[in-house]
Order: sequence, then structure tokens, then C-alpha cells
Amino acid sequence: MSTLIDKVLVSLRWNADHLELLDQRLLPEEILYLNLTQVAEVWEAIRQLKVRGAPAIGIAAAYGVHFAAQRFIESNPSTSIQDVIAEVKQQAEYLATSRPTAVNLFWALDRMKRRTETLCSTNPSELSAGLLVEAQQIQSEDEETNRMIGEHALTLFESGMGVLTHCNAGGLATAKYGTALAPFYLALEKGIDLKVFADETRPILQGARLTAFELQQAGVDVTLICDNMAGMVMAKGWIQAVIVGTDRVAANGDVANKIGTYSVAVLAKAHNIPFYVACPLSTIDLNTPTGEQIPIEERHADEITQGFGKRTAPQGIKVYNPAFDITPHEYVTAIITEKGIVRPSYLENLPKLFN
Amino acid sequence: MSTLIDKVLVSLRWNADHLELLDQRLLPEEILYLNLTQVAEVWEAIRQLKVRGAPAIGIAAAYGVHFAAQRFIESNPSTSIQDVIAEVKQQAEYLATSRPTAVNLFWALDRMKRRTETLCSTNPSELSAGLLVEAQQIQSEDEETNRMIGEHALTLFESGMGVLTHCNAGGLATAKYGTALAPFYLALEKGIDLKVFADETRPILQGARLTAFELQQAGVDVTLICDNMAGMVMAKGWIQAVIVGTDRVAANGDVANKIGTYSVAVLAKAHNIPFYVACPLSTIDLNTPTGEQIPIEERHADEITQGFGKRTAPQGIKVYNPAFDITPHEYVTAIITEKGIVRPSYLENLPKLFN
Repeated sequence: MSTLIDKVLVSLRWNADHLELLDQRLLPEEILYLNLTQVAEVWEAIRQLKVRGAPAIGIAAAYGVHFAAQRFIESNPSTSIQDVIAEVKQQAEYLATSRPTAVNLFWALDRMKRRTETLCSTNPSELSAGLLVEAQQIQSEDEETNRMIGEHALTLFESGMGVLTHCNAGGLATAKYGTALAPFYLALEKGIDLKVFADETRPILQGARLTAFELQQAGVDVTLICDNMAGMVMAKGWIQAVIVGTDRVAANGDVANKIGTYSVAVLAKAHNIPFYVACPLSTIDLNTPTGEQIPIEERHADEITQGFGKRTAPQGIKVYNPAFDITPHEYVTAIITEKGIVRPSYLENLPKLFN
Repeated sequence: MSTLIDKVLVSLRWNADHLELLDQRLLPEEILYLNLTQVAEVWEAIRQLKVRGAPAIGIAAAYGVHFAAQRFIESNPSTSIQDVIAEVKQQAEYLATSRPTAVNLFWALDRMKRRTETLCSTNPSELSAGLLVEAQQIQSEDEETNRMIGEHALTLFESGMGVLTHCNAGGLATAKYGTALAPFYLALEKGIDLKVFADETRPILQGARLTAFELQQAGVDVTLICDNMAGMVMAKGWIQAVIVGTDRVAANGDVANKIGTYSVAVLAKAHNIPFYVACPLSTIDLNTPTGEQIPIEERHADEITQGFGKRTAPQGIKVYNPAFDITPHEYVTAIITEKGIVRPSYLENLPKLFN
């Protein structure tokens, strides 16, 4: 691992006996790692959005399960393995209440509970150690998945290219590298010069607060623009590719992602610029036939009318604030996964990933 | 004039012996009209952006010239007409320093100076009164121009249509009605139901702070969206037309307007939605062959990184912040002026307006 790539800001990392977790609420103004050792601290970190991004939340919760076992054993030195298992399951239920809609959170907690079952023949301290290894495994698998996504994505890019991204599908949301941002970190490692443009991504500004920040920290050449400047930078010939993450890919290749992704895709097509989507296989849902079946969350008007701590729109104004949009598959040049690059027809080619 | 249209918020209005000027810096939080009677107050109002929009600035300055004459005569009751004329010219030079790049400001001041010359055979108080009439004339001509633009534009719209606009080409920037917003006010007067969508228009948020505000005040059905939602609302079938203002139209029909206009035009074309540009003849510059000759102002990074009193992007991040973009003529369905609607070929049809 080169020194360059070590500058990638990680959302969380295990250090000897505690979890170091980046408090993302303070970004981009302050980089503060919290030292967590208690399950309640992990619950609170998830609840209060100190950690965000589906994979990162799942990893944090997995370490929380380890803390549950370890602290219980410390307080009850002569406890039985059955009592530890009961405690672990109870605390896992508790952790699940921290973000009730986070699918990755439930997935990680289920995996930790299953691992607890298979460790039931060990003694309490071995069980606790085994749960730490499992949490670390979840983290390293996520890192490896993202690294593979980055490696595949990078085959599509060449030195000198300008690449535009929207929202934050970065290291801060995952174990490391992120999905859409992974090729930028690997390009840095390999000495491939890419010029990244980050849409600020209204209303929550994930592009300005997170993407611009984490790429800047790592030393990637990144330029921040407002969402409405994407068309102009494309027209100027500065963009040779677009890459974004996704919340869900339907069986036909329709892509749900942060609001504004669809506009970027239409602009890319109008300028003959390829539009790539990066995601792990776990994001591809072959049970969802098309984008039409993906529900679009509408969020509160306040995010638009007073998102900057200051009211910027009149009282009582009607607002439409969808959190996501659907980019139809015909705008998607390719989908980049840890198992390789998929091109249309997605209906035919996506299922092959799962064989 | 109906009561409905009287609810249109005006940027400035003459009242007996003083100019009432809306302090636009306080919008949308507060509606405060300042009472101006001194040339220095007008200078300051322009300088401090209490009044904005090229036509509105020009009108304010014209009233300022009247104040210059009036106050001078009050202080020097036995003054000669020559002294008044000298004072008026000097104060007009002073007013010109309030916004050194505002073309309409210079145009209005030149017109007031020319009127001063033709009034030189009158006595001082008649000259002062004549200058007031001239300022009111500039204002009413602007209002009439905008009303005609609105009448022509309205022939393109029907009850039930959704219309998207970007930035603020509204009454607040002009004497009344605005250009792109004029048809919305006239539709209200005529009982034609339009559903307006206003892009918030980052980074300065003229759409959120001004367009949404003035349309809401008048009772127009307006919905605020972020710029990156325009594509989605078009895809949902909610938009049947786009209408925007412009800072300059080139001879070939290329249009310079607030950053983000080009993206909206590309999105409109992709959804087969007509894209209209509304402007007075004075904005069409046949001496500029194409959009390529129009210089694009780049503004300070702070507007994007900490536009609302709170830092929303990392320190030292590279930013690209163009204030305007160029929409090539092939995206422009029609240009709507006070003399009627012009369609391609603009190279052939724009000059006919000036015959």
C-alpha cells in the first residue's frame, strides 16, 4: 500500500481495543475521531449521524456487538456462554433501533448474531474475540469490494480525463475508497491524473461537504461546482466521463440515486459523455423489475428553504423535495461492480453476475 | 387594472414627493420600503444592492437626478438655470459611480442629462418638475415594455400548463411585471391557471429569494425546487414550457443568462419541452455575432463555499463559479419581445424587430 492511498480519510478504524469513528457531523470544518468502547456509544453515533452511509453504519454496528460481549464479560467474569449469547442478541436488537430504515445495519447485525451461534461452543472471552474478528471481516470485505470496483472502473479512465461525480459515494460512506470515488483513489496510487468535478448536490450538499472534502484530503485534483454548472462544464469539453453511486439498481438497469443524478445523466447523453454507475452486487435488486417500483422519499421543505442555517426562501412557500430520482437504463453506459463491468442489455447481463 | 395585479410587488414607486424603494436585501424575510428624497440616498441604495436588476437601477438613478435638481433649488432659491444644469450633470456623474458596470444605469443617466439640455429654457423649478416627469416616463415605458412582453408570452401558454423558470427575471428587477415572469402576472389577471416551478438558482438563490417570493406575494401558484430537480419534474410530465430572461442575446440567437440556464435548455430539449426567452429589444445586441463573444464573469469561490453565513465546503477547495452561461440558439424555441415573438432563423428574424 503506497503512502498516497494511506491519506484516504476512513470513516472508522479499529485501534488496539477501541473503535475510532470519524464524527462526520463536524465535516468539513473539523476532523475528529471519537474513541468508542461501549455499545451505547455506537448506538448514539449511528442515531446522531456521526457515522453515515449504509456500509459504514453496518460496520460500526458490528463492532458494537463485539463491545456488548466484551463489556458484559468484564462486568460478569464468571458468566456462562449462554448468558453472553443472550446479552449479545439483546444488544443487537437495541443497536437495530438506532436507524430503523437502514438495510445494511440489519444485515450486519444478523451476520453478527449468526456468528454468535457458531461461536457458542467456545468460552466467553473467545466468543468476544471471535466477534471482533467477524466485525473486522465485514469491514475488510467491504474495503476489498470497493477496491475491486475501483480497479474495474479505472480501466475506463485515462490520464488527463475530466470526470464528474454527484453526491457522495465515497470512502466516508463505506469502509474505505467508496464506490464511485474508488477509481479516483486508485488513480492517485497508480499515478493516473484525473481531474474530478464534484457537484455540490443540493439540498444537503453531500458533494460540497463530503466528496470535495475527502478527495481534497487524499490529494485528488477536485473542483467543486454547483449542480446547475454541470451542463456548462460539459459544453466546455472538460468532462470525459460521469461516475455516480446508487441506492438501488433494478433488474432492467434503471438506477435510483440522489436527486439530480437523472439531470446529470441527460446532460451527459446530450454531450456524448459516458455515464457510469458504480455499486456492489448487494445493491442490484433483480426482484425490482424497473425503476418505477422504487419508492421515492420526499423530504421536508426546510432542507431547501433554510438548509444553510439561514432562511433563503419565503415563509410558507410550496416546495417539492424528492430525495432521489430514477435514471432510466438507456442513459446508463455501464454498471461497475466488484465482479466486473456490465453493459446493456442489463436485463440479460445483470443476472450473470450472480451465477 | 384589476385588484389581482395590484398585488404585484414593485421594486420602486413614486409617492407624492419621494421615491419608495423596496430594500431587496431584506427579502424574503421582510418587506420594507425606504423613503428616498436625496441623491446620496439613491446612490447608496444602488451601491448597497438595496435595488437590483438593470431596469430598476436605471429608474432609481433617474429619480436621483430629479432629487439633485430639487434639493439644489431648495438650498439656493435664487439660483440660475445654468447652475442647476451644472449641478444636475455633476450629480449624474456621481450617480454613475454607484455600480460601474451597469449599462442601464448609464443609459438612464444619459437620457436624464439629455432631457436637462432640452429643459434649459425653463426656470429652475420647471426644470426640476420636468426631470421628475422624465424619470416617471422611464419607469412607465419599462412597465409597458414588460406588459407587452407578458401579453405576447401568454399567447404561448394555456390554463393547466406547468411552466419552469430559472433565476429572477421578475418585477423586482424592473419597473413592474419583469420579463420572464410577466406572463404569470397577466395570467393571474386573466384567470388563466399556470403552475409555476422556480429553480432556486445556486449560488445566489435568486429563484428562492426573489422569484418564489414575488410570485407568492402576488398569489401565483409557485413551487420551489432545487436546480438539480428540473430534470425530474420534466420527466414526471409536470412541465409544458420553460421561460427565462436574458442578459444579452447575440445576433444568431445565442442567449447569455444566469448560470444553469443552459442545463435547463438541454433538459427541456431532451423532454420535447419548448424553451422560451423573454427580453426587451434593448437586450438584443446585433453587434455581438454569437454567444462566443459574450464574456462570462467568474465570481468568488465564497459564494459557493459559504454563501449563507455558514461554511459548507472545505477550506481551500478549488471552485469554478461562472455567473452566466451561453445557451446556443438551437435550444431556443422562441424569443419573446415587446414587439412580438421571434422564431428561428434568428439571424434572419431578429433584425426585422429593429426595422
